Amino acid sequence: MKVFIVFAHPEPQSLNGSLFQVSINELKAQGHQVQTSDLYAMRWKSEIDRADFPNHPVDARLMPTYASAEAYASGNLTDDVKREQEKLLWADVVIFHFPLWWYSMPAILKGWFERVYSLGFAYGLGEYNEKHFGDRYGEGPFVNKRAMLVPTIGGWEEHYSARGITGPIDDVLYPINHGILYYPGFQVLPSHLVYRAHRMDEVAFEKEAEKLREKLRQLETIEPIAYRPQNGGDYEIPTLTLKPGLGGSTETGFSLHIRNDNETNGKA
Amino acid sequence: MKVFIVFAHPEPQSLNGSLFQVSINELKAQGHQVQTSDLYAMRWKSEIDRADFPNHPVDARLMPTYASAEAYASGNLTDDVKREQEKLLWADVVIFHFPLWWYSMPAILKGWFERVYSLGFAYGLGEYNEKHFGDRYGEGPFVNKRAMLVPTIGGWEEHYSARGITGPIDDVLYPINHGILYYPGFQVLPSHLVYRAHRMDEVAFEKEAEKLREKLRQLETIEPIAYRPQNGGDYEIPTLTLKPGLGGSTETGFSLHIRNDNETNGKA
Repeated sequence: MKVFIVFAHPEPQSLNGSLFQVSINELKAQGHQVQTSDLYAMRWKSEIDRADFPNHPVDARLMPTYASAEAYASGNLTDDVKREQEKLLWADVVIFHFPLWWYSMPAILKGWFERVYSLGFAYGLGEYNEKHFGDRYGEGPFVNKRAMLVPTIGGWEEHYSARGITGPIDDVLYPINHGILYYPGFQVLPSHLVYRAHRMDEVAFEKEAEKLREKLRQLETIEPIAYRPQNGGDYEIPTLTLKPGLGGSTETGFSLHIRNDNETNGKA
Repeated sequence: MKVFIVFAHPEPQSLNGSLFQVSINELKAQGHQVQTSDLYAMRWKSEIDRADFPNHPVDARLMPTYASAEAYASGNLTDDVKREQEKLLWADVVIFHFPLWWYSMPAILKGWFERVYSLGFAYGLGEYNEKHFGDRYGEGPFVNKRAMLVPTIGGWEEHYSARGITGPIDDVLYPINHGILYYPGFQVLPSHLVYRAHRMDEVAFEKEAEKLREKLRQLETIEPIAYRPQNGGDYEIPTLTLKPGLGGSTETGFSLHIRNDNETNGKA
């Protein structure tokens, strides 16, 4: 397989940096092809702005979304963005190594998505009609690719449990897993979680490294999160609200958008 | 009152930029003092990295959290970060104007929090004992200040409704409102939401501007979101899981962490 790893931590010697190396080494040892983007080392530009659209007239109002569509369609994106888009197209699997900072990804990685996900490249495709609201959430350009987050987390696992104060980790990561990865079609694997990241000695690290290696050996077979495809019959179009009767007794929240095992209707 | 507005959009002529101006003008007209940070115009640096800690030894491993604590305590943070911290300390109310990009704030604003929220300045304060797990979530340095998000949202309101595919907007914003604002003690006001932001003509804009002005006239009196204080009795310490019996029939999810009107126990 072709595996693309995106890494977002300023310190190569960090736990994150070490796990990133574990991934590279293990995947190569398995015979996979590996490409990487070490965002800090690349001095990746985080902010989407006018400099991303060199052909956009200086005195014209900048609407980043539409400017990205125009630049993508006309081949006028900047070279750094083009290279990342090529890596995404090349990959069978994309893995993201990053620390969970303030309950989300680091700014530099957020900016990677903002700049690399051009309209027309990552989204904005497909028809809009009575039964289909564009190729989004389960359809889209990355539909044959898998993606997985490997976040390191400073807090305790209990704080991220079902009744933990931060909210369940699956909910904390939903805007990324569902909103950023499932949206353009990725099959999203359950995240590989590393808790209490700043309190790890050598023994604990080796244990975590082995857990990660074990996970990477199953990359091709792990069952993706069973998010409901937008156009698969579970949602009203165009309001995109879950149809009555689906979701069991859950009234609201992110977990509604994952299929239960015992649901049979609305299958895509 | 002293109001600090942080603005994160690259285009002053955008809907966001226009609403930012509406806020400035309305607050000044009401007689409030206003300071602003226009992050793009300031060319704000988004990435937290070694350059943030000029006194950190070049060959020493960088742990950003601890480096921020040291630099803050010794007065060695960079001037741009110091200025933002002073504005935060000065303010009675902090307002964030930004577009919701990929279900979160723009990278430049995320990086603002990462860099300005030094350990020891914004968090990491208070005792840790059997009844108190640090001054966090409802306690902390900003406990007498209010904060409010003003996100503009490209999608439809229905998509962000209780059963909408993106998840309810309150859940989408929970990692920011609860995880970033309530965590260091802010009283978090319900966000002022603007939907279908890229499809607004002059008439629609003026209507939105007036809604915003009306909200700003009530800044001092709006009831904050009733998040449960971490040390107020609702949570087990140190697991920070919500105590049995609280939260009604809701089993999991972010909404557990907002008090119901009819709950009387565990009051802080």
